[in-house]
Amino acid sequence: MNIYDISEKAGVSIATVSRVLNGNSKVSEKTRQKILDIMEETGYQPNAFARGLGLNTMNTVGILCADSSDQVLAFAVYFLEQRLHKYDYDVLLCCTGYDVTVKEKYLRLLLSKRVDALILAGSNFVEADMEKNRYIVEAAKEVPVIILNGYLDASNVYCALCEDSEVMYRLTSQFLKRTDRILYVYRSLSYSGREKLKGVKKAFERAGIALCQDQLLLFNGTIDETKQMLKERSGGRKLWDVIITSDDELAVGACKYAREAGWSIPDELQITGYNNSRISICREPEITSVDNHLEFSCQNCVTMLMKALTGGQVPSRMSVSGDIMIRGTTTDLV
Amino acid sequence: MNIYDISEKAGVSIATVSRVLNGNSKVSEKTRQKILDIMEETGYQPNAFARGLGLNTMNTVGILCADSSDQVLAFAVYFLEQRLHKYDYDVLLCCTGYDVTVKEKYLRLLLSKRVDALILAGSNFVEADMEKNRYIVEAAKEVPVIILNGYLDASNVYCALCEDSEVMYRLTSQFLKRTDRILYVYRSLSYSGREKLKGVKKAFERAGIALCQDQLLLFNGTIDETKQMLKERSGGRKLWDVIITSDDELAVGACKYAREAGWSIPDELQITGYNNSRISICREPEITSVDNHLEFSCQNCVTMLMKALTGGQVPSRMSVSGDIMIRGTTTDLV
Repeated sequence: MNIYDISEKAGVSIATVSRVLNGNSKVSEKTRQKILDIMEETGYQPNAFARGLGLNTMNTVGILCADSSDQVLAFAVYFLEQRLHKYDYDVLLCCTGYDVTVKEKYLRLLLSKRVDALILAGSNFVEADMEKNRYIVEAAKEVPVIILNGYLDASNVYCALCEDSEVMYRLTSQFLKRTDRILYVYRSLSYSGREKLKGVKKAFERAGIALCQDQLLLFNGTIDETKQMLKERSGGRKLWDVIITSDDELAVGACKYAREAGWSIPDELQITGYNNSRISICREPEITSVDNHLEFSCQNCVTMLMKALTGGQVPSRMSVSGDIMIRGTTTDLV
Repeated sequence: MNIYDISEKAGVSIATVSRVLNGNSKVSEKTRQKILDIMEETGYQPNAFARGLGLNTMNTVGILCADSSDQVLAFAVYFLEQRLHKYDYDVLLCCTGYDVTVKEKYLRLLLSKRVDALILAGSNFVEADMEKNRYIVEAAKEVPVIILNGYLDASNVYCALCEDSEVMYRLTSQFLKRTDRILYVYRSLSYSGREKLKGVKKAFERAGIALCQDQLLLFNGTIDETKQMLKERSGGRKLWDVIITSDDELAVGACKYAREAGWSIPDELQITGYNNSRISICREPEITSVDNHLEFSCQNCVTMLMKALTGGQVPSRMSVSGDIMIRGTTTDLV
């Protein structure tokens, strides 16, 4: 069944059917109704262009993903796509990389495709410098913008978050009851990166223990680079009782360092990861990690998005708590 | 700059501008040229709907991905998207799952969106039963279809492959020089699953060594399930000198089994993975794995696709060889 069949059945020209599809008002109401009835009877699906012109929507959501080769973000894209499909939305995917000007360019590109909404998947979309987030605020004037693992206080922007700060506070506090020889290794100062750091700092503060600058280590490297960096930094001495990290790859790097340096895990050195990803269970002992319930956050994204699209009242923020998954690389946790 | 500005500048009605955008022939050549000139001068970008109607293309490639939460496929989607963007193509992503009827439904959905081409990312798209591949052959009558890690002999279908069979043959042959107590654990009978199995079988055949049915083990489980299964199957006995697997997760499961059972790696038990993914380097010893050069295959996909879209001569198949990445879980390899 196509536009020609419809025109034949209705006894009108193709141009008239096209006008109806395109929402052109130069068609009598009677003819319009007749054509729409035939379309319904025959189950005719106008193609995306026609639908786009007629209904002014393509039922498409644009997902900007900084890096879908990142295990965590890859899962996020998968969850989001699955869920959006249930609501008959298509996904237009852009992998932006980490450069802010590229992100901005890609966001504009998606808007020019007339997406119904945007999802920014990845904590790194929200910069600490608000000036750099302006393009997101501007985009939200056109379509709802949902941010996964990032918070931005702006109109028509909705955020699905994990309580990263709270769970890092809880984790660090427990270690601080026994030792203050703690190193925190973190990969970035993305939104959730800043939240995690905040939690670590707060734990020291509340415990009344001074936190030295060299206990905080910003490092964005591979597993082996992490191992190497810790080796050089410690210079053969045992500087730490605990290494807390902001993701499981850094934790694996720390485990490899400990193994090479001859510190037994967890008796001499305790180590924690974050994300509860597959690589946290690849080693012996398995790595204690934080489950940030990514799938729930993705559900929250889509829930907020659907509400925003149908004009409902939407909270600007939904959060899930993080859970500490206690495994063999720690002993002090309950 | 929008369609209203263009009409004003050209001194024509909006309807006329719209007709030009939509490729409607009821506009004089002079007027059409005038409008096109103004669009060029002002850098006006018609929106996707208008472009779609006018040029009969949306510059969009549909990617069907069985499961983007699979590390390998997630990387593939990332590489493909990056590369397609360089050619100004957008990506419409569908995560289909593994059910063939769902795959078919999603493929039709993408076609109805008028994508310019389809990429099937994942070896499981090509079934051994040709009848189940019929929907792909049909789709290829409408747009070029590119298959990553799968081979289907049909018109307008182009395949980017790794020489899985050859590298598995090479790997197994080397072990067979020293021992025939080899177990092969594989996850699926997808296209590349079948190729890998073929390579293993051929190695036994060429070496003139009988391959028992219980040396081949089809198992689709998590890391821990793999460990458990091997434990039960061996019943505490040492049945194998070598465990070859079809992916790194199975290999990690095998390493965990060996560790728990008390067989030292690689002296008592050698283990190999496949895909050369991040988890192959998470353990001590690091896991010997096969690099199937996924990024090159993704490049091949896009290269073939662009040629097919521009009507060039395209080979129906491009292959890359696999490389054995020798690490600590093996001793016999060169």
